[in-house]
Amino acid sequence: MINKQDVEKAYSKIHEYIVNTPVRRSHVLSGMCNCDMLLKMENLQMSGAFKERGALNRLLKLSPEEKKCGVIAASAGNHAQGVAYHAKRMGIRARIVMPEGTPLIKVMGVQSWDADVILKGETYDDAYEYSLELEKEEGAIFIHPFADIHVIAGQGTIGMEVLQDNLCKDIDAIVVPVGGGGLIAGIGAYVKKVNPKIKIIGVEVEGLDCMRASLAKGEIQDVVGKGTIADGIAVKRVSPLTLEMAQRYVDEIVTVNDDEICNAILLLLEIEKIVVEGAGAVAIAALLNKKIPALEGKKVVSIISGGNIDVNILSRIIDRGLDFGGRIAQMSTMLKDKPGALEEVIAVFHKENANILEVYQHRYCGGAPVGDVKVSFTIETKNRLHIKDIQRQLEKHGYEVTHTQHKND
Amino acid sequence: MINKQDVEKAYSKIHEYIVNTPVRRSHVLSGMCNCDMLLKMENLQMSGAFKERGALNRLLKLSPEEKKCGVIAASAGNHAQGVAYHAKRMGIRARIVMPEGTPLIKVMGVQSWDADVILKGETYDDAYEYSLELEKEEGAIFIHPFADIHVIAGQGTIGMEVLQDNLCKDIDAIVVPVGGGGLIAGIGAYVKKVNPKIKIIGVEVEGLDCMRASLAKGEIQDVVGKGTIADGIAVKRVSPLTLEMAQRYVDEIVTVNDDEICNAILLLLEIEKIVVEGAGAVAIAALLNKKIPALEGKKVVSIISGGNIDVNILSRIIDRGLDFGGRIAQMSTMLKDKPGALEEVIAVFHKENANILEVYQHRYCGGAPVGDVKVSFTIETKNRLHIKDIQRQLEKHGYEVTHTQHKND
Repeated sequence: MINKQDVEKAYSKIHEYIVNTPVRRSHVLSGMCNCDMLLKMENLQMSGAFKERGALNRLLKLSPEEKKCGVIAASAGNHAQGVAYHAKRMGIRARIVMPEGTPLIKVMGVQSWDADVILKGETYDDAYEYSLELEKEEGAIFIHPFADIHVIAGQGTIGMEVLQDNLCKDIDAIVVPVGGGGLIAGIGAYVKKVNPKIKIIGVEVEGLDCMRASLAKGEIQDVVGKGTIADGIAVKRVSPLTLEMAQRYVDEIVTVNDDEICNAILLLLEIEKIVVEGAGAVAIAALLNKKIPALEGKKVVSIISGGNIDVNILSRIIDRGLDFGGRIAQMSTMLKDKPGALEEVIAVFHKENANILEVYQHRYCGGAPVGDVKVSFTIETKNRLHIKDIQRQLEKHGYEVTHTQHKND
Repeated sequence: MINKQDVEKAYSKIHEYIVNTPVRRSHVLSGMCNCDMLLKMENLQMSGAFKERGALNRLLKLSPEEKKCGVIAASAGNHAQGVAYHAKRMGIRARIVMPEGTPLIKVMGVQSWDADVILKGETYDDAYEYSLELEKEEGAIFIHPFADIHVIAGQGTIGMEVLQDNLCKDIDAIVVPVGGGGLIAGIGAYVKKVNPKIKIIGVEVEGLDCMRASLAKGEIQDVVGKGTIADGIAVKRVSPLTLEMAQRYVDEIVTVNDDEICNAILLLLEIEKIVVEGAGAVAIAALLNKKIPALEGKKVVSIISGGNIDVNILSRIIDRGLDFGGRIAQMSTMLKDKPGALEEVIAVFHKENANILEVYQHRYCGGAPVGDVKVSFTIETKNRLHIKDIQRQLEKHGYEVTHTQHKND
């Protein structure tokens, strides 16, 4: 177990090499979540996530002999980045084991810090097993992403920075993403010692709530696991150490689903002007969806744990959000198969100020009267009301319209 | 003209109501730009841009009688938001005149602060003229976006925060977006008084470089104007006041184009995890493209002036960036018009790990042999090398491939 002093020691050693990330109040999210909402922006950490705090603190504990042996980590994400970055800075050889299907961009990210990447196995578990073998065979030191007292003490420095921040006077709660539990354990150990009244609330992904299940049962419970946008906290089993610390310091764990997380990512992008990865958005997702009723009207710090999201995933989340907000619509109608027919229907869109993004006229359309053709449009719209207006105008001009509704309509 | 004391007075009055936005060092951009790169992140200002500093300082100068008359502003952007937000906070009626084509999202943004929106005219100039008429007829006070000493003093508080920041000791230069020139005038007035050695460099959009032209000529020069992604600095004429201050305090003005700006927006999103609007990215665009050779190896603060970019524009910039980086590709080939032909070609993509985003089989394809059909694919790829590999594999299987190349290939 680690305590307040361990976190303070970690802070004194690492603070020179990490960013004391800003805390920002969000007026708009405060209104939407019905609480005084402060964001601790670890997405603005050097490597884009908090993980380097723990990794660096662990690296600093290596003896000169251990340093010569180098280090190993198993991770396709933020832990890999944190280990690789600080190992390079300290002149330590780092080997990162990643599953074979790891996106090239993540491989290249780690390689840019001169770490050796070893692609092994299909899943994270395979990569993990192999890294333990390597540790035994070659004597390099394995850096665990969460089941390590020095890693946990490093992550806890976030709690210290929060309590020292001027904006965070008299906070009532800290809401923390939970994967293996290292982050919440470190923050809890520090914060509960300074002020036990501050609630420490964890957030997991639905179906990946191994910490919640383990706390409920009083012993480690595995979950089956599944894909999620919050890949940074997709953990199937917590460690005895993080469970024991959670039992002592965590008040409650709640869960969120991928739809809620995507919506939170989009709002943070639009309102707060920051890029947040899935795992980094779960605290906001929980508060937006009123998963923690006890925090209504309270002063709450949400830990935005990281921002390392692939831009093509971000692009899809934006498109989904535009669809949801009525800013894109798909409509189709039947036209007479003669010159000028397409122009006439397009004039209606023009008059209604709807920008056409895609148009497709189907040559074959089963069931339609001979002489009629089907045409489909994807249009850029202002909002759902605008879509209804366009549909009404088309119908007024005699077109029968099929509008592909968003599933939440 | 305003001086250092005016900026300090403005700061003492407004600092309680504005965010002292963080300054962050970017290691990656430092490497790419060959300088020590610090970002002053005004996109994290409450309203998403620096404009509220000047607007608030102006509102605080209103007499009790003037407050009763309310205020008017002409703007479809950040100035409108800044005026509306602080006017509401202070209980002052605000009317914002916007051109008729203003996107609904910007209208709604201002309305959310309870400002009255008046849609008038086709262009910003029309809206501006109308707001001056309103001022005369109804006695409400017009708040100019830049030609106003109190507005300029408010914007200058950014310079004060920069020089007070620990990270900014011994900086060599500040790079500032220039539209009407209020921001650079305020920052220059303060910074040059404290330390005349610090270079003040402005950045305008190519073809909208009215400040550069006016400085070169020694008197106000109009530019014709054109559309740009950096709408926040699309100004056709500076004011006598900002020109005079620029003559005194600005060392150099450089320009960037829309391609350079879009690339800077994407890099800030991917690397720095922040959302930046076009005008807010021009300083980075200038440094990335080595427009200011004198700053190589120097310690430079770039003013990230705002983050209010429409998410569908952001989505397009991401798509363009993915295309440029070889992460999306378009290919087409000819198939035999028989069962199984499509499956065979798709198997090649599968084997090469290319995710298919769109597929379109053309029923009619002029010039093709009878019995052949054309099929087009949009695929998600890892990088340009991956695209070449896929193309080679397809050709090895006997397909003739047309790859729609990116224009910069």
